[in-house]
Amino acid sequence: MTTTTEENQNIYQLGRLIQDIDCGMLTTIDEDGSLHSRPMERSSDIQADGSIWFFTNATTHKVFEIKNSQQVNISFTSGDKQRYISISGIAELVKDRQKMQELWKPELEAWFPQGLDEPNIALLKIQITRTDYWDNQSQFQQQTIT
Amino acid sequence: MTTTTEENQNIYQLGRLIQDIDCGMLTTIDEDGSLHSRPMERSSDIQADGSIWFFTNATTHKVFEIKNSQQVNISFTSGDKQRYISISGIAELVKDRQKMQELWKPELEAWFPQGLDEPNIALLKIQITRTDYWDNQSQFQQQTIT
Repeated sequence: MTTTTEENQNIYQLGRLIQDIDCGMLTTIDEDGSLHSRPMERSSDIQADGSIWFFTNATTHKVFEIKNSQQVNISFTSGDKQRYISISGIAELVKDRQKMQELWKPELEAWFPQGLDEPNIALLKIQITRTDYWDNQSQFQQQTIT
Repeated sequence: MTTTTEENQNIYQLGRLIQDIDCGMLTTIDEDGSLHSRPMERSSDIQADGSIWFFTNATTHKVFEIKNSQQVNISFTSGDKQRYISISGIAELVKDRQKMQELWKPELEAWFPQGLDEPNIALLKIQITRTDYWDNQSQFQQQTIT
């Protein structure tokens, strides 16, 4: 991302690619070096600063892993459209009440029944460093956005 | 996996979970520590020894990454069934002609038009160390198989 215009185009393109995929697989590195992934429902579109946000419980093992190693990958798969997106990024735990209010949506009550009053509720911010995608339109050639 | 019976049950259960999902996202660690993923069509069911195999080109960047760090994750997503599977494992490049002949299937010609005569064709063996899954039947509670 070298210019504001290019950055805006990249964010727009990535936003379109994932617009119909709510849930991604977040991969993190455990302290023994092994890689784990788990489904995460995204709480935001791609933000203007090139970040993507998720609600999380601050006491979960993935948060422990992220404190150990901030490098993560989040992949989005739309099987019926044969579209696969890889987002590499740097993860950070953020406890910002105002940002939580901005990003909260009622669907999240399935995971956080008490809403923003849930104990240990927090945000995971992933600052995107690289995005690749594959789809049937590009005949599964790798396309790098950023 | 502590007993043969338990191991067989785990392999059977994992096989059923991914039986209708041909393509997973393989996450590897690059030399700068960043995590990348890309779609990979699986070339085998789960083998009796707890491994899963993929055909690959031996000169691709992911093979370079795996030589650097063997820890990988492969995730399978079935969006319509709301099923998410995380497989942690140790990856290894294998150039075994007999195993390639055993695992070859015509659908792979989309990636390897010359079949087993393709230059640099090889196998990626992932020895599974841990499997977790989430689905709507388990109300998205994490289930660990191995």
